[in-house]
Amino acid sequence: MTNVYVHGIGMTQFGTFIDRTMKDLLLDACIQALEDAGNPKVDAVFVGNFMGGSIYNQEILGAIVANELGLGFIPTAKVEGACASGGIALRQGILGILSGEYNTVLVAGVEKMKHASTADVTQAINAAMDNDSNEKHAGLTFPGFFGVLANRYFYETGASKKHLAMLALKNREHALNNPLAQFRKPTTLEEIMDARMITNPLGLFDCSPMTDGAAALVISKEKSAIHIRSSAQASGPTQMQDADDLLSIPAIRESGRLAYEKAGVGPEDIDVVEIHDCFSMTEMIAIEELGFFNKREGWKAVEEGRTKSTGDKPVNTSGGLLSRGHPIGATGVAQIYQLVSQLRGNAANQVDNPRLALAQNLGGTGSYSTVHILERV
Amino acid sequence: MTNVYVHGIGMTQFGTFIDRTMKDLLLDACIQALEDAGNPKVDAVFVGNFMGGSIYNQEILGAIVANELGLGFIPTAKVEGACASGGIALRQGILGILSGEYNTVLVAGVEKMKHASTADVTQAINAAMDNDSNEKHAGLTFPGFFGVLANRYFYETGASKKHLAMLALKNREHALNNPLAQFRKPTTLEEIMDARMITNPLGLFDCSPMTDGAAALVISKEKSAIHIRSSAQASGPTQMQDADDLLSIPAIRESGRLAYEKAGVGPEDIDVVEIHDCFSMTEMIAIEELGFFNKREGWKAVEEGRTKSTGDKPVNTSGGLLSRGHPIGATGVAQIYQLVSQLRGNAANQVDNPRLALAQNLGGTGSYSTVHILERV
Repeated sequence: MTNVYVHGIGMTQFGTFIDRTMKDLLLDACIQALEDAGNPKVDAVFVGNFMGGSIYNQEILGAIVANELGLGFIPTAKVEGACASGGIALRQGILGILSGEYNTVLVAGVEKMKHASTADVTQAINAAMDNDSNEKHAGLTFPGFFGVLANRYFYETGASKKHLAMLALKNREHALNNPLAQFRKPTTLEEIMDARMITNPLGLFDCSPMTDGAAALVISKEKSAIHIRSSAQASGPTQMQDADDLLSIPAIRESGRLAYEKAGVGPEDIDVVEIHDCFSMTEMIAIEELGFFNKREGWKAVEEGRTKSTGDKPVNTSGGLLSRGHPIGATGVAQIYQLVSQLRGNAANQVDNPRLALAQNLGGTGSYSTVHILERV
Repeated sequence: MTNVYVHGIGMTQFGTFIDRTMKDLLLDACIQALEDAGNPKVDAVFVGNFMGGSIYNQEILGAIVANELGLGFIPTAKVEGACASGGIALRQGILGILSGEYNTVLVAGVEKMKHASTADVTQAINAAMDNDSNEKHAGLTFPGFFGVLANRYFYETGASKKHLAMLALKNREHALNNPLAQFRKPTTLEEIMDARMITNPLGLFDCSPMTDGAAALVISKEKSAIHIRSSAQASGPTQMQDADDLLSIPAIRESGRLAYEKAGVGPEDIDVVEIHDCFSMTEMIAIEELGFFNKREGWKAVEEGRTKSTGDKPVNTSGGLLSRGHPIGATGVAQIYQLVSQLRGNAANQVDNPRLALAQNLGGTGSYSTVHILERV
């Protein structure tokens, strides 16, 4: 159990913002979070960001936040762990508070992607694979990786493409009610099933989009109504060939196990969940690895609607990466934005009186995973 | 005072290694540090790196280290703060131990630059300035920034280009005795004075080079002979126009002040120093900001040879960034490598029986500075 609390949350609209700079988005989310927290004195800033250097030629985001917001000569840093950069930035903020060095920390995440070509973004995302990997040299990409997992999942279970489509539709429908989500157009199961194939069996709606956006949190050792009950992080193999079981992502499993252990709770105690659904298949694996459903049976829960906001284990009530959007460095922070909103009782797709909430943020093809468990106190 | 100790150090040769990958350099330094520490169980990895994504298309360095070295499912991250990335990575390791989450942490830094063109590296380095800055838009680069400071320094003091050349020569001569240094060719004051101009008044030898290399440390809460007596970090303005005094870099001053305060020592107590001499002028400012010499009088100390390894305040006995080399993310970690070697009594340019050592690592034009004070116990 940590003695760290969330005091403020902020988030920009997620979507396409060609006319806004990365700095503008980042500061917008930070200002919202600081205002929500009552503008406390901040002792440090951690920013999660992945491709600011490679496709936007902008690093030093920590110093930019401190300078632009007049926070003084405080320590700041950017943290990178591929798509888990936001979750890891939060964890560094928590460690900073637990160390006794900081009382209050501003944690932010940002990514600016829509100004770049899909080819440039794909190249930048490939930096989240090991250059020396023969899988990368053979041409494996992120959609390809999760496509292989999906085919294996179908082979080993009774699931089919329809179950992934049902999962994607669920997140699409959640996003309809989230004013900050990237995609808010009604969609049908047929559209999802019939969409342009990206990598067999994953179609367009099974893959998270390119997104501009930012999110921010103020956390502190001072008490508030939202307690960060545990923070956990794990690493895992960067290559598929090193996996003991293609349908397991050890970093998700280990970060979940540690987070439950530290919080003294189990998956059955969690009321609302945000999961890293970079692909529909990733959410399918994660709901099993996190113990919400038995291994190789997540698809049955999806079929029964159990992960809908109206189900007994609501997952991605924000719309998830698939439909709220996936501005890489911001994603792990935006998950906490949604869960704090749920615990405060004013979320998009509000669930009934939640007390415990869990966020899981993935980096690479399983290189990093963070899990944070929040509690309304 | 922290309760964190250095148990192992590792460092590759710095220089041009076209045939070695970034991963190869990084793992080499890590393996050395782990062996030097007796191969303890490691609980987390922090890697300092700046341009791996932008010029080498390789991120996820934390996970790569954990996987390749078989460290298990431990938390890892890359940390970025421009040229202070290494110093900030060390600080995150220290905070992680102080938080109680980790006992032993592997801290590494790496950069791979020599495969890229000078133009590409210059573009990547410019990500360490604020894109919205009108100084950047006006064409100001890092050599330009420190060139302006040098001209101002000459204007306000009795110093001249010769004093910068004497400083550069001192670091060049230190590097002659450091087998891991990039430049080990004897040089004369005349060569330095007459070298190709980069930006008036800074010539080739006043500017740190592009370098490939890596360095690593094992730190732990278990006691050892090398105590990290304090860790401090500060931010400062990203633009020259926001400086109250052109000859002050507030992040250096504030990080130094905090580090002395936390350690309960003053500049007069420090026996050996590694300073971030990205340019000769940067070392000149830093020896003043850190209180080793009066403001605007550092040049007199240089003239008197006081900062040589044989002087009363030895600075950059490694050769510094100017001559040991500056593989950006590795630099802050390599500084600690040199200081631990000094405190162990087996350094290049060994000084007489040092007890307290100070490392200062700068990011951007003053956006970040870390100061660590080490003590032989």
